[in-house]
Amino acid sequence: MRATVMYGAGDVRVEKVPDARLVERTDALVTITRACICGSDLWPYKKMSRSETGRRMGHEFIGVVEAVGADVRSVKKGDVVVAPFLWSDGTCVFCQEGLHTSCLHGGGWGSPGVDGGQGEAVRVPQADGTLVVLPVGRDDARMASLLTLSDVMCTGHHAALAAKAGPGRTVAVVGDGAVGLCGVIAARRLGAEQIIMLGRHPDRIALARRFGATDIVSERGEAAIERVRALTGGLGAHSVLECVGYDESTRTALSVARAGGAVGRVGVPQDSTVPLASETFFRNITISGGPAPVRAYIEELLPDVLEGRIEPGRVFDRVTNLDGVPDGYCAMNEREAIKVMIEF
Amino acid sequence: MRATVMYGAGDVRVEKVPDARLVERTDALVTITRACICGSDLWPYKKMSRSETGRRMGHEFIGVVEAVGADVRSVKKGDVVVAPFLWSDGTCVFCQEGLHTSCLHGGGWGSPGVDGGQGEAVRVPQADGTLVVLPVGRDDARMASLLTLSDVMCTGHHAALAAKAGPGRTVAVVGDGAVGLCGVIAARRLGAEQIIMLGRHPDRIALARRFGATDIVSERGEAAIERVRALTGGLGAHSVLECVGYDESTRTALSVARAGGAVGRVGVPQDSTVPLASETFFRNITISGGPAPVRAYIEELLPDVLEGRIEPGRVFDRVTNLDGVPDGYCAMNEREAIKVMIEF
Repeated sequence: MRATVMYGAGDVRVEKVPDARLVERTDALVTITRACICGSDLWPYKKMSRSETGRRMGHEFIGVVEAVGADVRSVKKGDVVVAPFLWSDGTCVFCQEGLHTSCLHGGGWGSPGVDGGQGEAVRVPQADGTLVVLPVGRDDARMASLLTLSDVMCTGHHAALAAKAGPGRTVAVVGDGAVGLCGVIAARRLGAEQIIMLGRHPDRIALARRFGATDIVSERGEAAIERVRALTGGLGAHSVLECVGYDESTRTALSVARAGGAVGRVGVPQDSTVPLASETFFRNITISGGPAPVRAYIEELLPDVLEGRIEPGRVFDRVTNLDGVPDGYCAMNEREAIKVMIEF
Repeated sequence: MRATVMYGAGDVRVEKVPDARLVERTDALVTITRACICGSDLWPYKKMSRSETGRRMGHEFIGVVEAVGADVRSVKKGDVVVAPFLWSDGTCVFCQEGLHTSCLHGGGWGSPGVDGGQGEAVRVPQADGTLVVLPVGRDDARMASLLTLSDVMCTGHHAALAAKAGPGRTVAVVGDGAVGLCGVIAARRLGAEQIIMLGRHPDRIALARRFGATDIVSERGEAAIERVRALTGGLGAHSVLECVGYDESTRTALSVARAGGAVGRVGVPQDSTVPLASETFFRNITISGGPAPVRAYIEELLPDVLEGRIEPGRVFDRVTNLDGVPDGYCAMNEREAIKVMIEF
């Protein structure tokens, strides 16, 4: 079969790899019908060291079950399924608490012996704990939005929950990428009325407004912080979604939070420390978040997607096929595309 | 009158200062009957730069109201009152939310024009928003425990709340000072069953056990982290109270937290960053806390003190008079005393 392999920064190739196949009795074999490129795929794209063997890429996909192992009960051949960006057993203490990202027997796509999502097929470990059956056909019109349930929409939701977004609380979103845009959807869905998007790109701003952003702050650094404060009666936002991961964006997020407020961080940290230890302490800021336990959220968000109440699939502004994946990485890295969907 | 003034690291003096007096119509004048020395007073004691004018010290006290300004309604001459470690108006948006430490019109004892608590009397700004009347005589037997409501017991409570301590959750307390010990009381009071105290001093360990600690970890660094994990089924503690403020203690606190857990920090940060940005992110650790909104907690904790259900006053293992304050600083700094009470 063919799949995406990264050999170093800027070097993404689509090439022949061993066919995916069942190995464990708890596996499913899934033929991929839709996948996408994640903002977090851009971190290795920017700085991965040279590798002779390469790294299999992709962790967001929808597909059709081709075969299941003897112990699999919840999915069967022919089911259309969505996979979270991590696989998990669904039974360990963390899965039972809804923190599937810390599953004691889980792992990541593309790790040794496991296929990546940007390829023709995947062996899915722990299929019962991982896959969610979608009640739609493989070419359903809502497929783009359903695909976001594998990561980006659930990640925006996680940021909003971690930041305690809700009725009566003002929300600021730092980062106008696909995650930040889904954060706007999530904040609105949770009942926030004032949603301030920090961003500068006209197409992203337009989408943010469509998703429910009420204010746009296009300044940067101190000026952005002052502008958010001005928009919130001088106090700052109750809930701040950090959807980037850089030190500077984290500083901005922590600084625009109101005293007693919460910052939900979902941007993968690119530094070893969190800034502003004292400032956040004296203002009783809560810092929460991390990788989203997608498996816990899919069932909650699925009805909203199926019934059209949210349309996170609009974050895809480019569609390609498997051969177009390297160009897709380039476009997202250059910020020419918000998010790229791969159709098979 | 006489009061405590710090002129630089290690240089604490008791000397004559201008008499406290009413200035604003919202002031009360309080004669102090009990005060104490705080762990946070030791930070300037360790590293304050030389000052010609000095800095008035003390922010924890109980006293008797001598006079009130024309606008004061909630306290009157003769009332025995306790003051939080910050004064606050009680009416601003933050006070109404219970975050009195961010009061828009509040401030700290010993700031310019305001007396410190380690002296004979204090002008109390915003008396209605600040003081809480105690239904006891000035020499009540529970006075030591009542005094802890000005800071240390409420700070332990804040740490426990920030760390989400409660039934079914394991708790670890980093720091065996008076705040950590009160954190044990608070965790127990909130329903935690397993409470692990990280500490080494026999007297503090004994007190921690009396307060409800079920396990003691006397190792340090990596060994301490491993020991806490071993005590919690390899997973770590749901709730961790950081009651020190150093980078190393914060690392320990963050490392012993279970995935999905919460760290409540009340130790004043001595560094500009919070460590372990990635580790805490990938494990979805929540970092919360800050200065305790004592004014919001006194009324909640007061019945427990009055009825003897908690005895935080046991953290005082030395009593002195005003002249003994400099020696008290020295004893606490040398860790010869846990916490020093001043009787007038």
